[in-house]
Order: sequence, then structure tokens, then C-alpha cells
Amino acid sequence: MYNLYIANKNYSSWSLRPWVLLSELGIEFVEHMNFFKGGYGKNTEFLKFSPTGLVPCLTEHSVTVWDSLAIAEYVYEQHPSVWPKDHAARAWARAAAAEMHSGFSALRNTCSMNCGVRIKLREVSPALQKDLDRLEALWLDGLKRFGGPYLAGDKFTAVDAFFCPVAFRVRSYGLKLSPKSAAYVEHLLDLESMQNWYAAALAEKARDPDHEAELEAAGDLIADYRA
Amino acid sequence: MYNLYIANKNYSSWSLRPWVLLSELGIEFVEHMNFFKGGYGKNTEFLKFSPTGLVPCLTEHSVTVWDSLAIAEYVYEQHPSVWPKDHAARAWARAAAAEMHSGFSALRNTCSMNCGVRIKLREVSPALQKDLDRLEALWLDGLKRFGGPYLAGDKFTAVDAFFCPVAFRVRSYGLKLSPKSAAYVEHLLDLESMQNWYAAALAEKARDPDHEAELEAAGDLIADYRA
Repeated sequence: MYNLYIANKNYSSWSLRPWVLLSELGIEFVEHMNFFKGGYGKNTEFLKFSPTGLVPCLTEHSVTVWDSLAIAEYVYEQHPSVWPKDHAARAWARAAAAEMHSGFSALRNTCSMNCGVRIKLREVSPALQKDLDRLEALWLDGLKRFGGPYLAGDKFTAVDAFFCPVAFRVRSYGLKLSPKSAAYVEHLLDLESMQNWYAAALAEKARDPDHEAELEAAGDLIADYRA
Repeated sequence: MYNLYIANKNYSSWSLRPWVLLSELGIEFVEHMNFFKGGYGKNTEFLKFSPTGLVPCLTEHSVTVWDSLAIAEYVYEQHPSVWPKDHAARAWARAAAAEMHSGFSALRNTCSMNCGVRIKLREVSPALQKDLDRLEALWLDGLKRFGGPYLAGDKFTAVDAFFCPVAFRVRSYGLKLSPKSAAYVEHLLDLESMQNWYAAALAEKARDPDHEAELEAAGDLIADYRA
């Protein structure tokens, strides 16, 4: 049985990736939720289960896997549904997921995940617009190349899981996308696992000062649906 | 046959990863070198072979893989030597490589790869020291857990390839490490593929203003062995 360590559902975009992957594919796991205390890099109690003090972290027997992309590959060894079956689609999906893993820093930094709020962005910086343009090009390429409705074909795979946090960001910050990309976002938000994550995020009463400060820096609060 | 698109050997740390992986494992590929022109994100001619305009990028037949970690997984499907054979070592190696892929930003930003020079760092910032402390902990864990001399056992695998750029950075910037970690760096620098890359880097006459500016920002030039 997999043990998956995650942080607050409202904030933790990296946690969402393996959580929604396992949940949507029906792969059993035990969820271990740990709330942020004291902001980034100060969660020393996270070191009890994660060598970096970061989440997500998956354990099985004596094995610890402390990175979201490594978790996908680890689980793939037992569950082939993690990546597309088709060779070319799998190569594309892995490259796209890896690009999200190391890139899109303006999108990640400006629009930090905060599922339960709606924000009017103060500005769309050139760096953020560049990330959004690349996101569009990438998504439209995948949807066209493999026929949709998911990024690499007709099944939800790890590459979709890696863009699930982006779906929440698009909604929270009202990011402008083409109709096809906006439809893909809606498709992700409608997934049962995403609805479950969102409901749990809204129910959380804990607030992390660092994440809330990022929100204030990004723009003006329009709505807050959190408990 | 794999086609591997890379940039300048003196500067391009991301290019080095798949290049040294394929080279050291004896996996054939055709090298396509393209020099930086005009700095980061301005290499529009790179868009001819890479959808992000970034390197490395690997192609085979009609498949394009535009990320270093995705390249490792793509090649692994045909070449099992890319990752350790042992299940636990493979899980560890993937998590460590993925951590390098998305992390160690202070190390990467402060000490940008520049194989042919030696620099006295102006300061070791707390963020850089934190990255170095984590690097130590990670390396010593792998070397102890799997017995060395490589990070995940007795064979060179993708996780070592992902830390090969760090070996050049350690030498160029004189970064202080424990004796065991320093010995691992020497071991990487002594690899035939690393020697070949280094010789080619030294022979390059092209200079990229952005990379040279990063070098000046980092500290004082002690030596420059480049042509």
C-alpha cells in the first residue's frame, strides 16, 4: 500500500499532482495530510517523513520517493495507466510533465495555488504572459496531436495530473485562455477527484501567512469561498 | 538513431545531462551543437528543433523529447542501463534526479556552469549554503545506502548524469564539500565522457554575454583556461 504525504489542499499544488493521479486512476493509497506551520522551508516536522522537508512524498515498505515526477514513474512500474499506452503519446506526455516540473516559474510564482479564492490580478507581466502563451501552445499541440479530451489522448494520465494545479490557478486568477484551452480547464475541474480535492480545500480552516501574502501581492480579492 | 540537440559545452548544464548519460553508457547518438546567440530565451533558431526553444532536445523518427528528465525516461525504455537495476536504488535515483531537475535554484543561479574558468565566490549566501548542505546530505545518503562509487550503486546511471553539471560547478567555484563528496566530484570529473566534454568546452571560442555577466556577478576570476 502506498502512503502519500501531502500538505494543505487549498495551497499545495505539488501535493495535488500525485494525489489526483492516484485518485483519478483508482489506485489505492493512504493519505497523510500535514498542515503548513510557519511557512516555506520551516516545516521541520515534515522532515520526519520527507528527506527534503517538502511534499509530496510517497512511501511503500522501506522505499521513500520524495518528488512528484519520481512518484509518477515509481507508481508507473506497477500501474501502466499512469502514462499513455502509445509510444509517441507517452514520450510527449513525459516531456510536457517535465516541462511543468522545472518551468512555468512566472505562472507558479505570480499565481500561487489558492483553490478557494478568486482574485483580480493587478497585472499580467510579460513573463507571466510568456508562460501563458507557452501553456496555450503546449496544450493545443497535445489536444490536436492525440485527439483529446485529455492532453495525450482519450485517457487521464500523469501529464493531466501535472496540469491540474494550473486548472485551479486559471479559475482563481481568471487567466485568459483560448476556448479550447478553457474547455480543457473545465474538463479537469469537473473530474470527480478534483471536485473532492476542492471540497476538502474549501473546508480547511488553517491559513498560511506566506501563501496569503502571495495572494495579496498578486491582486485584489474578489471572492473567498473558504470556511 | 537518436539526435541530440545541445548548446555550448562550456555553458549548457542542461545539455550535459543527456549527453554524458548517452556517452558514458555507450548509447549511440548524433550530436547537433548550436551556439547561444543573443542570450536566454532569444535563441529563436532553437525553435526549429525544440518546441520551447530550449535545449537539450532529443529526436528519433517523428518523436521529439524536449526535456532532460523525459529524455532519460524515453531512452530507458530501450536501454535499461539508464536507471539502476535494483528497485529501491531506482526509486531513490529517480527522486534524486527529479530533485535536481526542479530544485537547487540558488546553486544553479549563483554558480552557473562555466567549465573553463575558476572563480573566487564573492559570498556564500544562506540560500546557497542551504543548497550545498542538502547536496551533501543527499550524496552521502546515496553513497552509503547503495555502496558507491556512484550515487545509486556501482554503475553510472542517470542520477549521476544529473549531477555532472554540479561537478563542474564545484570545481569552477571552489565549493567546499566533505571529503567523501569531494571524492565523488573527482570521480565524475575523471570519467572519459566528462574529460571529452571538458576538452570540447575549453576549445570553444564563442562567448555568451549573459553567461559571462553571471560569472562576473558571482565573484572574481582566478583563471580562464578557455581558448
